[in-house]
Amino acid sequence: MQRIPIPIPGHEHDVLIGRGLLGRPDLWLPPSETVTHVALVTDERVGPIHATAIEQALKAAGVPHSTITVPEGECSKSLPVLGSVYSRFVAAGLDRQAVVAAVGGGVVGDLAGFAAATYLRGLRLIQIPTTLLAQVDSSVGGKTGIDLEEGKNLVGAFHQPTAVAVDLDTLRTLPHRQLQSGLAEVVKYGVIADPTILSTLEAGVDTALSGDAALLADLVARSIRIKAEVVVGDERESGRRAILNFGHTFGHALESTTGYRTYLHGEAISVGMVYALRLSSNLMAFEVADALRVTRLLAACGLPIAPREPIDPDGLMMTARADKKTLSGHLRFVLVRALGEAELVPVKDDDARRVLEATT
Amino acid sequence: MQRIPIPIPGHEHDVLIGRGLLGRPDLWLPPSETVTHVALVTDERVGPIHATAIEQALKAAGVPHSTITVPEGECSKSLPVLGSVYSRFVAAGLDRQAVVAAVGGGVVGDLAGFAAATYLRGLRLIQIPTTLLAQVDSSVGGKTGIDLEEGKNLVGAFHQPTAVAVDLDTLRTLPHRQLQSGLAEVVKYGVIADPTILSTLEAGVDTALSGDAALLADLVARSIRIKAEVVVGDERESGRRAILNFGHTFGHALESTTGYRTYLHGEAISVGMVYALRLSSNLMAFEVADALRVTRLLAACGLPIAPREPIDPDGLMMTARADKKTLSGHLRFVLVRALGEAELVPVKDDDARRVLEATT
Repeated sequence: MQRIPIPIPGHEHDVLIGRGLLGRPDLWLPPSETVTHVALVTDERVGPIHATAIEQALKAAGVPHSTITVPEGECSKSLPVLGSVYSRFVAAGLDRQAVVAAVGGGVVGDLAGFAAATYLRGLRLIQIPTTLLAQVDSSVGGKTGIDLEEGKNLVGAFHQPTAVAVDLDTLRTLPHRQLQSGLAEVVKYGVIADPTILSTLEAGVDTALSGDAALLADLVARSIRIKAEVVVGDERESGRRAILNFGHTFGHALESTTGYRTYLHGEAISVGMVYALRLSSNLMAFEVADALRVTRLLAACGLPIAPREPIDPDGLMMTARADKKTLSGHLRFVLVRALGEAELVPVKDDDARRVLEATT
Repeated sequence: MQRIPIPIPGHEHDVLIGRGLLGRPDLWLPPSETVTHVALVTDERVGPIHATAIEQALKAAGVPHSTITVPEGECSKSLPVLGSVYSRFVAAGLDRQAVVAAVGGGVVGDLAGFAAATYLRGLRLIQIPTTLLAQVDSSVGGKTGIDLEEGKNLVGAFHQPTAVAVDLDTLRTLPHRQLQSGLAEVVKYGVIADPTILSTLEAGVDTALSGDAALLADLVARSIRIKAEVVVGDERESGRRAILNFGHTFGHALESTTGYRTYLHGEAISVGMVYALRLSSNLMAFEVADALRVTRLLAACGLPIAPREPIDPDGLMMTARADKKTLSGHLRFVLVRALGEAELVPVKDDDARRVLEATT
């Protein structure tokens, strides 16, 4: 088992990476004498597969617990589902010494995290991500939240977990397309911070896609170390943390304009990264050969490197502009000067539109 | 104008107390170049009386703003009303540089504060309390939140404002019963921390009830200084902050068992304080003469000193136990050894029931 410390002042905690962690709450739960109840929040797909191991271990340890199951999918990141989670918290009798454990992908982590952040003005939270995407991205860093009908992630809170338990065994039951989607974020870390991740993945892309625990453990750990380093320096995203959004400006817009039905998050980010790489070549003298290399790696991971259906560049521009991450004025993109050197750059509309038009 | 600093580390801000502050956003708004929009949140009673002065001043200063009006009363501290506030935030185009200003009593402050705490993971908040109760209590300290159908204040966040503007002119339009209700919390500060507040109020209770701005300014300022001192030492209510709940154990239970229809908050707290004073005499050797003195002062303020209708002691005990502030085990009360010396004390059920039965 690997243990990666997240030294955020006042919220120090560890990310544990290993196998069989679901059945070892002793490794990730706060001292049991401080815990009155554990509320497992999961979804209808993950719960039946993974919650049982945790429930049995908690029962064996004599820790009172209950399981709250929400529907699968983004629709659960909503005020009505949040309200139903709160009501289940009341019914389970949670007090301020209770702990919430989020068992699932990014949706469950965001929803349960926000519920934990706000119930009784804040309960302790354990993130137990069961998708590769959540393991390398959303479970670390303390962002929690829900969507409104008007847009994604408009409501939320920063709420650091007391532990993150990454059980690599959960990847064995992960649908193949979800594994590919997660690799998009792994590639992202390679581009913005650590090019050796790219060479590792290039050398073993088939091994990774077959679900090899040792290789995935290595990639997950290296990804989380980068995220941890960035987040610790900028918990509230006032500066450097923005580089984690590489590929996300157009990636989010693509997800949004297609109603979140066409692309998994990592797939949209993959396409967004290809755009960001081209922009980087056009504006930052980023080596075209490196852009092609990363694009080839994304394709090798089974990820899309161009939109699956024709896009409307103007519509995508407008959606990107409406995204809360774009301040008044021009669009801003995370671009790279070289592999591992990312920065946030204002981009003129014409320049941004040009890379969209080149691929429609 | 008085200025009381609230030196919470990382969230330093001031409480301004004076007259005509509604029309002086220059005094309480962050530097206007950092503010893209001000969203005033108010209710149907307060908005028509007090929002206009702020709107005109913002217009004159060229600050974009909008006004969001919610229904009056506790029912607005709900998930559905919260959702409507979020939607109004979206419609107004709030970005991360927007500011939320809560203009109203405790309900508006709690609701708008929680919306500000969570929209886009946190916007800056100005508290502009327009009731005496909100001025001396809920607008200071950073507690925000909403109710669930299952109970009050079950959902919330700690979110410190960037300023609190207490405009004493708002008290001139405050219903008399609301003014009396606010005085209950003023008396509370006298009992738990500063007995000179009691003598000041004893000497001028009619003057205070007539709405005299100078006397109320003095009482408000001394109350806020006590709250500030307690909150700064214990922002997250892990210890001393609990003494602010003097009178609240049975006070909350009384509000709850009567469906929040019979008592204003301060009225219920007044009755709760009388119980707490008796418990203090029974268990902490608190001088009976001092208990009678405080009880007389509450009565002189026009506040109830006994339940208005017969109560069921067992029902009240059970409700108090269900309150989130009572941990598993015995009820805990804030009691006083002497005026100005409060502490949190576990109380046996028999002792607690005895003071209820003595007055039913």
